[in-house]
Amino acid sequence: MSPPLRFRVLSTDPACSARVGTLRLPHGEVETPAFMPVGTQGTVKGILPRDLRETGAGLILANTYHLALRPGPEIVREAGGLHRFMGWDGPILTDSGGFQGFSLASLNKVTDDGVAFRSHIDGALIHLTPERSIEIQNSLGADIIMAFDECASYTADRPAIERAVDRTARWAERSAQAHRRDDQALFGIIQGGVHDDLRRRSAAQITALDFPGYAIGGVSVGETPAEMSRAVEVVAPLLPPDRPRYVMGVGGPEDLVGMVASGIDLFDCVIPTRHARNASLFTRAGLVKVRNLRFARDFTPLESDCPCYACRKFTRAYLRHLYTRNEMLAGMLGTIHNLTFFQRLMGKIRQVIRDGRYREFQASFSFRLSGVDEGDGPGKEDSPSSDWRLSH
Amino acid sequence: MSPPLRFRVLSTDPACSARVGTLRLPHGEVETPAFMPVGTQGTVKGILPRDLRETGAGLILANTYHLALRPGPEIVREAGGLHRFMGWDGPILTDSGGFQGFSLASLNKVTDDGVAFRSHIDGALIHLTPERSIEIQNSLGADIIMAFDECASYTADRPAIERAVDRTARWAERSAQAHRRDDQALFGIIQGGVHDDLRRRSAAQITALDFPGYAIGGVSVGETPAEMSRAVEVVAPLLPPDRPRYVMGVGGPEDLVGMVASGIDLFDCVIPTRHARNASLFTRAGLVKVRNLRFARDFTPLESDCPCYACRKFTRAYLRHLYTRNEMLAGMLGTIHNLTFFQRLMGKIRQVIRDGRYREFQASFSFRLSGVDEGDGPGKEDSPSSDWRLSH
Repeated sequence: MSPPLRFRVLSTDPACSARVGTLRLPHGEVETPAFMPVGTQGTVKGILPRDLRETGAGLILANTYHLALRPGPEIVREAGGLHRFMGWDGPILTDSGGFQGFSLASLNKVTDDGVAFRSHIDGALIHLTPERSIEIQNSLGADIIMAFDECASYTADRPAIERAVDRTARWAERSAQAHRRDDQALFGIIQGGVHDDLRRRSAAQITALDFPGYAIGGVSVGETPAEMSRAVEVVAPLLPPDRPRYVMGVGGPEDLVGMVASGIDLFDCVIPTRHARNASLFTRAGLVKVRNLRFARDFTPLESDCPCYACRKFTRAYLRHLYTRNEMLAGMLGTIHNLTFFQRLMGKIRQVIRDGRYREFQASFSFRLSGVDEGDGPGKEDSPSSDWRLSH
Repeated sequence: MSPPLRFRVLSTDPACSARVGTLRLPHGEVETPAFMPVGTQGTVKGILPRDLRETGAGLILANTYHLALRPGPEIVREAGGLHRFMGWDGPILTDSGGFQGFSLASLNKVTDDGVAFRSHIDGALIHLTPERSIEIQNSLGADIIMAFDECASYTADRPAIERAVDRTARWAERSAQAHRRDDQALFGIIQGGVHDDLRRRSAAQITALDFPGYAIGGVSVGETPAEMSRAVEVVAPLLPPDRPRYVMGVGGPEDLVGMVASGIDLFDCVIPTRHARNASLFTRAGLVKVRNLRFARDFTPLESDCPCYACRKFTRAYLRHLYTRNEMLAGMLGTIHNLTFFQRLMGKIRQVIRDGRYREFQASFSFRLSGVDEGDGPGKEDSPSSDWRLSH
């Protein structure tokens, strides 16, 4: 049996750690750096799988916590696995369920054994352990699955984060031992909060377990952008260069551009889909809040050079009409566009790395997001600000 | 300039008035009998125009009342007309706005001049006259537009309905005089409620004005199914056989099958799209209420022989999961399927007419809707009943 994951680094930027690679998985090959749209409940919200493919998406993420509650892992397994259940024949990654257990559920109780919490749907008491998380993920059948980790709160004190780091290491080992399918690649997760030494300790503990890929967890949980970048910059160089590196739950365009420079290969975030449903649409000139009255008679496409269906066929005036009338088609077209924007950004990132000029691109990137280079675009007031960069 | 509408009857059933024809319009040709999906606010809810085309839809309907309020006819005209604005390059029909003025707005005041009412959105006072309705419809630019009529309430007494009939005739003449575009076909509307003699009087008045097509209005407004059928059976033979006949706001599959036998060519109804959003999905075996627990492990498609994307790629179990989680994709897939079901039904109707065996088909139709011929389908309790036939 060939390994479920083959990762090849094809090119590394001469001036930073940015790299281009290919990640071959049972359900297909993706180019890295890659952005994963989030399909929380077994559907990327508001988009048909065939249209999701058309945006350029390769790998997508689904949430174990949500799928474990509804419809439950048994039904997904009986359906022939998550790919068949949700009609997505490309690669999928599932998280471990721990993060949502901590953030969405109530009455968390964490012990060395695992986490007990109450379902956010019906209050049912649920016990999640490394063994159970992996068993569920084995039932779902994603190409990449994640070790069960403890993501301590951003407000936790240092001793609590230290305990979470050591517990995450023990749980990672138990996750590896519980894993039963050789057609799924199990990734380890590094914790450690904003403490450099704890990040280093976690990286040493987790890499010692020799996973085929590594994630940096516990980021984008309330820390400042500078703290988030710092955690990635500290951990990334400690991860084996021949394994894919994944930053969980990140991020906005500037986050992606910044972390790619640190050598990150994989990202996931709800920003493009959630913003689409909230009428915030991504353009190279900045974020377009398309409900604004200024777009009522704007008969130009959202982005004139964007190949997506929303930009080829519709105007800003029509999108504004749909959003102000709360029509389903608003979020549907916005989702197609925003996901296409993110995939185009990743394509641009990969091209620039191949061209060996990533630093130059990175330096100019925030400038290009400020709406200077498109006269007909939104003005300065629509530029990305910390509110959208962190609202995920 | 060639006329905006060319209608040809290709075949009439030997045993009833059912007929197959082609309706050529500036934006394309449609086969009749045809079902128009409803795009109230310039979007058929929950479906991309390209997917709407894939369901087999030719002609679609948009509501003048809604578009006149938001975004307003000027914006649609500046956008290049409704086809370009909403990204639908096939034929469109707009209603006159009168019906929604009566049913949605408050403080209606009807005079010979027109209708004054308050917007259901912001309470703004709006005055709609035949001239203004046609002016708006000329701005929207649909292939077929409708004369401004008075649709009396189902509970109105006979004198009120009589007044509405005569007023509708005067308004039809004013509508024709106000019409300014020779690339739009203006249809007249027959009123008269459930009174045979008033229906006949209205038919005589309206057909005297020589419209290129005729609609039967004031149906599906609260009367019984028998009363609705009766109105159509009384009026249809009085309409010139070389002009298309349209029953407004109808209906369920049995309504369509029944009225086609009376010689009706065009229908519109929100049933397929609204039911889709409410988890009621159409199959030849009956209406599938897909939230039902019985479908939790049903890994078969909604209809095994349906060519739609929802049936080709997904199971009832997955659809149930989406609906119970209130995911957007639920209504999106349900809409694709329900609209495909209605278009397939119309295709079947046309085929049976061409084959000269419509009466036989019609006689068997309610039987086929009762879930007898599909062992794996839903049982008797999911059969269509008056609640879904009238809920539009």
